Amino acid sequence: MEKFEHAIVNPISSLNLLSRAEIEALTNTRGDLFDLFRRCALAILNTDSSKDDAAEIYADYSDFELRIVPQSRGLRLELFNAPPQAFVDGRMIRGIQEHLFACLRDIIYTDIKMAPESFSVQSDATNTVFRILRNANVVRPDVPPQMVVCWGGHAIPRNEYDYAKEVGYALGLRGLDIVTGCGIGAMKGPMKGAALGHAKQQVKDGRYIGISEPGIIASESPNAIVNELVIMPDIEKRLEAFVRLAHAVIIFPGGVGTVEEILYLFSILMHPDNAHSLPVVFAGPDNCAEYFQELEAFLVASLGEGVREHYQIILGNADHVGYTVRKVVQDQQARRRRLQQAYYFNWELVITKDLQVPFVPTHANMASLDLHAELPPHQLASELRRAFSGLVAGNVKTFGIEQVRLHGPYQLRGEPRLLRQMDSLLQLLVKQQRMKLGEGEQDYVPCYRIVD
Amino acid sequence: MEKFEHAIVNPISSLNLLSRAEIEALTNTRGDLFDLFRRCALAILNTDSSKDDAAEIYADYSDFELRIVPQSRGLRLELFNAPPQAFVDGRMIRGIQEHLFACLRDIIYTDIKMAPESFSVQSDATNTVFRILRNANVVRPDVPPQMVVCWGGHAIPRNEYDYAKEVGYALGLRGLDIVTGCGIGAMKGPMKGAALGHAKQQVKDGRYIGISEPGIIASESPNAIVNELVIMPDIEKRLEAFVRLAHAVIIFPGGVGTVEEILYLFSILMHPDNAHSLPVVFAGPDNCAEYFQELEAFLVASLGEGVREHYQIILGNADHVGYTVRKVVQDQQARRRRLQQAYYFNWELVITKDLQVPFVPTHANMASLDLHAELPPHQLASELRRAFSGLVAGNVKTFGIEQVRLHGPYQLRGEPRLLRQMDSLLQLLVKQQRMKLGEGEQDYVPCYRIVD
Amino acid sequence: MEKFEHAIVNPISSLNLLSRAEIEALTNTRGDLFDLFRRCALAILNTDSSKDDAAEIYADYSDFELRIVPQSRGLRLELFNAPPQAFVDGRMIRGIQEHLFACLRDIIYTDIKMAPESFSVQSDATNTVFRILRNANVVRPDVPPQMVVCWGGHAIPRNEYDYAKEVGYALGLRGLDIVTGCGIGAMKGPMKGAALGHAKQQVKDGRYIGISEPGIIASESPNAIVNELVIMPDIEKRLEAFVRLAHAVIIFPGGVGTVEEILYLFSILMHPDNAHSLPVVFAGPDNCAEYFQELEAFLVASLGEGVREHYQIILGNADHVGYTVRKVVQDQQARRRRLQQAYYFNWELVITKDLQVPFVPTHANMASLDLHAELPPHQLASELRRAFSGLVAGNVKTFGIEQVRLHGPYQLRGEPRLLRQMDSLLQLLVKQQRMKLGEGEQDYVPCYRIVD
Amino acid sequence: MEKFEHAIVNPISSLNLLSRAEIEALTNTRGDLFDLFRRCALAILNTDSSKDDAAEIYADYSDFELRIVPQSRGLRLELFNAPPQAFVDGRMIRGIQEHLFACLRDIIYTDIKMAPESFSVQSDATNTVFRILRNANVVRPDVPPQMVVCWGGHAIPRNEYDYAKEVGYALGLRGLDIVTGCGIGAMKGPMKGAALGHAKQQVKDGRYIGISEPGIIASESPNAIVNELVIMPDIEKRLEAFVRLAHAVIIFPGGVGTVEEILYLFSILMHPDNAHSLPVVFAGPDNCAEYFQELEAFLVASLGEGVREHYQIILGNADHVGYTVRKVVQDQQARRRRLQQAYYFNWELVITKDLQVPFVPTHANMASLDLHAELPPHQLASELRRAFSGLVAGNVKTFGIEQVRLHGPYQLRGEPRLLRQMDSLLQLLVKQQRMKLGEGEQDYVPCYRIVD
Repeated sequence: MEKFEHAIVNPISSLNLLSRAEIEALTNTRGDLFDLFRRCALAILNTDSSKDDAAEIYADYSDFELRIVPQSRGLRLELFNAPPQAFVDGRMIRGIQEHLFACLRDIIYTDIKMAPESFSVQSDATNTVFRILRNANVVRPDVPPQMVVCWGGHAIPRNEYDYAKEVGYALGLRGLDIVTGCGIGAMKGPMKGAALGHAKQQVKDGRYIGISEPGIIASESPNAIVNELVIMPDIEKRLEAFVRLAHAVIIFPGGVGTVEEILYLFSILMHPDNAHSLPVVFAGPDNCAEYFQELEAFLVASLGEGVREHYQIILGNADHVGYTVRKVVQDQQARRRRLQQAYYFNWELVITKDLQVPFVPTHANMASLDLHAELPPHQLASELRRAFSGLVAGNVKTFGIEQVRLHGPYQLRGEPRLLRQMDSLLQLLVKQQRMKLGEGEQDYVPCYRIVD
Repeated sequence: MEKFEHAIVNPISSLNLLSRAEIEALTNTRGDLFDLFRRCALAILNTDSSKDDAAEIYADYSDFELRIVPQSRGLRLELFNAPPQAFVDGRMIRGIQEHLFACLRDIIYTDIKMAPESFSVQSDATNTVFRILRNANVVRPDVPPQMVVCWGGHAIPRNEYDYAKEVGYALGLRGLDIVTGCGIGAMKGPMKGAALGHAKQQVKDGRYIGISEPGIIASESPNAIVNELVIMPDIEKRLEAFVRLAHAVIIFPGGVGTVEEILYLFSILMHPDNAHSLPVVFAGPDNCAEYFQELEAFLVASLGEGVREHYQIILGNADHVGYTVRKVVQDQQARRRRLQQAYYFNWELVITKDLQVPFVPTHANMASLDLHAELPPHQLASELRRAFSGLVAGNVKTFGIEQVRLHGPYQLRGEPRLLRQMDSLLQLLVKQQRMKLGEGEQDYVPCYRIVD
Repeated sequence: MEKFEHAIVNPISSLNLLSRAEIEALTNTRGDLFDLFRRCALAILNTDSSKDDAAEIYADYSDFELRIVPQSRGLRLELFNAPPQAFVDGRMIRGIQEHLFACLRDIIYTDIKMAPESFSVQSDATNTVFRILRNANVVRPDVPPQMVVCWGGHAIPRNEYDYAKEVGYALGLRGLDIVTGCGIGAMKGPMKGAALGHAKQQVKDGRYIGISEPGIIASESPNAIVNELVIMPDIEKRLEAFVRLAHAVIIFPGGVGTVEEILYLFSILMHPDNAHSLPVVFAGPDNCAEYFQELEAFLVASLGEGVREHYQIILGNADHVGYTVRKVVQDQQARRRRLQQAYYFNWELVITKDLQVPFVPTHANMASLDLHAELPPHQLASELRRAFSGLVAGNVKTFGIEQVRLHGPYQLRGEPRLLRQMDSLLQLLVKQQRMKLGEGEQDYVPCYRIVD
Repeated sequence: MEKFEHAIVNPISSLNLLSRAEIEALTNTRGDLFDLFRRCALAILNTDSSKDDAAEIYADYSDFELRIVPQSRGLRLELFNAPPQAFVDGRMIRGIQEHLFACLRDIIYTDIKMAPESFSVQSDATNTVFRILRNANVVRPDVPPQMVVCWGGHAIPRNEYDYAKEVGYALGLRGLDIVTGCGIGAMKGPMKGAALGHAKQQVKDGRYIGISEPGIIASESPNAIVNELVIMPDIEKRLEAFVRLAHAVIIFPGGVGTVEEILYLFSILMHPDNAHSLPVVFAGPDNCAEYFQELEAFLVASLGEGVREHYQIILGNADHVGYTVRKVVQDQQARRRRLQQAYYFNWELVITKDLQVPFVPTHANMASLDLHAELPPHQLASELRRAFSGLVAGNVKTFGIEQVRLHGPYQLRGEPRLLRQMDSLLQLLVKQQRMKLGEGEQDYVPCYRIVD
């Protein structure tokens, strides 16, 4: 396996300006932060990789070493055995270098500069999200609303990737910026397309914002088109950052992770206080009709007919997606201006505590989920999100896989009609190969069982 | 055929600053300039079109109308029945708008602001080229050498286009800028690739320079990635602009037009006063080996073994092309610094009169070409360039086609060995479908005959 | 006399970009241009000097040498025995360096790039003025109207200079830019004050435009605050540049030269086609009341009561001048927007030929002036301007002084009442020491005689 | 007394980006911060005032009201009965507006964003100083060393003010930036001069940094040339900010406050670990010879002959001051580059605790000062600084005046020779009217008594 043996990397200018106390914390007193940074750094250097198994990546690069070299003027990094794709003719690609120091910036800010206790309090989650984004210069005053959040799978067929690129192109031609989870697939396609659209419109400051978090970054290495990378401390703050930054959301087809995101979003949008606050478009190439039918059937069955008000579905016609999104974004602008709301951060959106507190997928927690259609839709959406969060864990996360190995499949209880619909959606995801298989496996082995 | 019925376009700011006399000349006294502008404008609006038959394009858009509306503050343009691909949601794409006014800028500069007589004198051709480029802000002081001129066919197979994109990506990753003839195929691929490379390197001011001329622009509509468009007054000044701006030249496979360019270039490079003045790389995907073998055989047979010093051939490995070109460009920089030569314009290059004077492909002129290997190589290269220039005309240009229709194929005389080698190359171009066929034709009908 | 022995000066970047033909013309074929440049260069280097006798300056620096050294990359200047105040610690002050190359830029543009015949035609004067200003980047699109032209004497008492500074400060606080003849006294005070006002308003791109011409530059060395210097080819184009750029004019007290400017201006403003086209404010410290009374008496006596509509007089209260000018400038903006007129150049102003053609002050020309109040005011103003132009020449210009020495005082004929009023004004100027005395003279010896 | 009745002021953009928690703290929960801001705001609006009696200013504007109006998008300020000199034509001067929000920025940063306990620990003072300067964007990477700190009196004779302007002009011509305490007199002169020098050198980003603190800002209202204002939380951090930012220090004549600063500085410079770390120039017009003689006599008598190594004295010749300072600043650059030290913040300077801890001027503290020449010079300098700090308090600060009223003059003990020299210096300050007199007083009444 080819590796880049040794590199010295100087910080992008602003990171030069660390106080002595900050350098000291990073290099000596806080070994935990250093480990965190080392893991994120490896993921960043592993840019554009199609490998999404974090364990495997860490194993491949077990000899990757990182040193923070304190200097009188600031610090620099020394790397050993780094992934070679981060370099051209022996020099690190500038975009990657910026990602590296963006990551360091966020770790220093979150864990050293901010009084860390301040964000342990849940009531403070929104302020913490805002402060991290502000420190990263992602929220900016006086910028018109033009942030389109794009969600969808990272391991998708070529035609879906091409479609995502076309949508991105249509968005870029209309001057819109892109926010994604910063990996490949539906996270990269829109950015790549938008870059071309921006070029044709002579837009030089197009924004391709990637929001990641330490737990997922290794499976979703930031692609190098991302020109603003932010590392949020956990998945809940990452999701909250997406929805508070968004002026519109496009959702491309994906697997259980994408369904989790959809349920998170609808739990917010169906909250009575959040009427019409954020437009959502489901989009995919023509051959994704079945996918969206099944998805919609599940949403309607669980959340009621009312859910239909909160999204529209567009099949094919990427330019029409661009046109539609531009229009709803303009409506957002008019609305926020009228209500004197900030363009750069959607403070008004009510996000309930259950969406801000991490869900731990033990068998007990999974079994006690309350999956009944009598719940108000936004609460049921939140419960269902937890169920899918557990499925994601049981499929791909270390903790969940281990739980399933020890105790067998998770048991899901609730209203039969609801559970059947959920199962039907999951089987389609399997059929369409949107579920990750373990190494050497031919068929998907479910990590859940529906209990009547 | 869908057309954009009516549009009003305001000038990019600097074009606002026209004197009253200039507006008057453009709108009233110089109808010839207006016609010239109308034709170029149509070609520009027809962006990214794969149609290369100018006559057909002009016929399709015979109802295209253009009005220059003088205003107290400057002027604006009114368009009727324009090609629709220049617009998004009813607004002209910014890149296209800039092309439109760049074209107007160059016509005004060349034909109104410059005393037109000043460049009829041939000795003045170089100064004229320089002045037009300076007025277009293409030559700039204090920019390090990084202009890579890319030549090659516009109608090329998909794999050659993809290869050209990969080469462009490798160039962009290395911070190099691209100059091409601004159409599609090998003219667009390198720009598109470089744009992605630049994005990853966070280069925001990457340059994608397209140099065209009124006689060719309709067959080679500028692609919308071009962010600096220049219209030179004729093909000779266009070619001179390429070589004086270049810090390196990459030549992808093409047809007789590309061969004409190669001969033009080698006539300059083999001039005794121009030793080692400009590095040249032939590049193509692996399956182009035969093409380059045949080309090289022809060059060596006609210009001697010495020609080999002036280029290198790289098959496949686009990244290696990038690496190589970066290296030779750095050598250029060192050389020019050492010799105190300008980086932005290669004044030192000797270009002889025969390369600056247009060649008119009558049968008499073709028959009197002196194709003998005893000539010094740079003179023979110039003679051969004229021969290929005639072939291009006989194939695709109105004047040449008419000559051949009236008088039969051109007759080429000279050393048999040389002519046979030339014929062999031409047959390969036919075989590889690099020669334009007339409408409805199945086989290429040669417009020349070799006379022993 | 201390001099700076030897300096090499590199051009500000854009001047690097000279074509070979341009360098050739400047250094070899056009000795006249070189002499012109040498004289202007000396005046520029003699910055902030209070000496206004050109002959004396040229004598002091008879050993000043200037060489244009052509280089492959452009040119550079070599200076010998230059005025030392242009340098700090051995390096030329950047502002002076920019003046030097601005001067070269204008000479090259006017005399080499523009076909020189094009502006010999008088009808073309306005276009020529525009083209020179455009080439100097003085006219700019999309800048709101904020150019205040300030006229007045260069040799003025300290309290008038301080007042001019205060007015400049009041203008700068209101974001207005300053245009003057670029020398000292009333030409420098407003700029210096405005610079401070701009600093307090955090305006970083304040404009201090100096417009000079070769015949006057040595007597009015540009002050170093000027950050845009333009050299017009003659005094008539200089005056036209002022009025076409102005959004308001402030006139401080001065001598016969200032009266000439006032008459030039009122000849334009009282032209029937130019109604209300340019606001004018006379301003001076409180103790200038007599000056303005006498001036007004003369204007009313000669041009009629109607002249009062075209100006207002403000004594003292510099802040009120600033307030007033800001207001009339806003009116100008509203007016030009309403009439769709350009902000950057007042094309609409009618300037008659007699104001564009130079007046040669021979005795015959002076004697044949037609100074009668029956003339339409704008024509009489033009005649009177010529009379004052002659007086300026008879006082300070080589040609006029010589004429008076040979033929005695100029004889002025016309309506006695008018001439008496004129004489009264002139005597006040003498009394207030606003007339230049010859070396060693104690009293002013008039160069004119009024003939009944 | 004229006042500006009512104004609404919008924040400079970055202050828009406050989190909800921050706005809440400022407007509701932290009344102390609001009071602090109100007092600073009044001082800022009272720009360029020559009044230096804080109590009087607060009395004059007892009806000044300030409201922070929280808004969905950020906040804005509402002002009632503000000092009128902060406005032009009803709009606040931009420079003042920036000061207002800079002050708010620093209060929010220091007291809300930074965990406040973090800087109560004295060992942390340096980090705190750095963090506040970094947050204010005063420390910047990659800027060459060019910060000249200027100290001296605020109530000085006209000729000393003009001299300070000339020195500033000489510094500005050499591209140097100015840092002062941001009031008038020797704090304003260098900035005003430098602004003119920068203008001539076409330096558009000249820096005029004012560093103040809440306890002094009312007596030293920031002048409007200051384009970067920082409010440090106390006088010790203010002094530390000066010396860690400085690349050279110029000290103009002043009163006891200036002597306190000199002793603070020499306590640092004579510390054995700080050899040659910061160049110091005493400068004043020719007629200040006696002042500097007496000052030097005192310094040598108390700190020994070795003190002479740490400064030079220049009388008159402002340009020579500029030349000298440019030179020592270049030496600083060379030194820091060689030692790989940061340019932007002098981390290496050892500042002992006694200089970081506030000195409270009770009679007991004053009496127990240990003023003996046997102490190592840097310790004696620190003791003497405390003595002068007490004198400043006894003269002008509320606490000190009260102490003296109750307990009589402070009693100073120590080596007689040393105390006599100190007394001699103080009498010169009295004679030269550099000591503040109480209202209605004719003679200075000493607040100290020397005890043998």
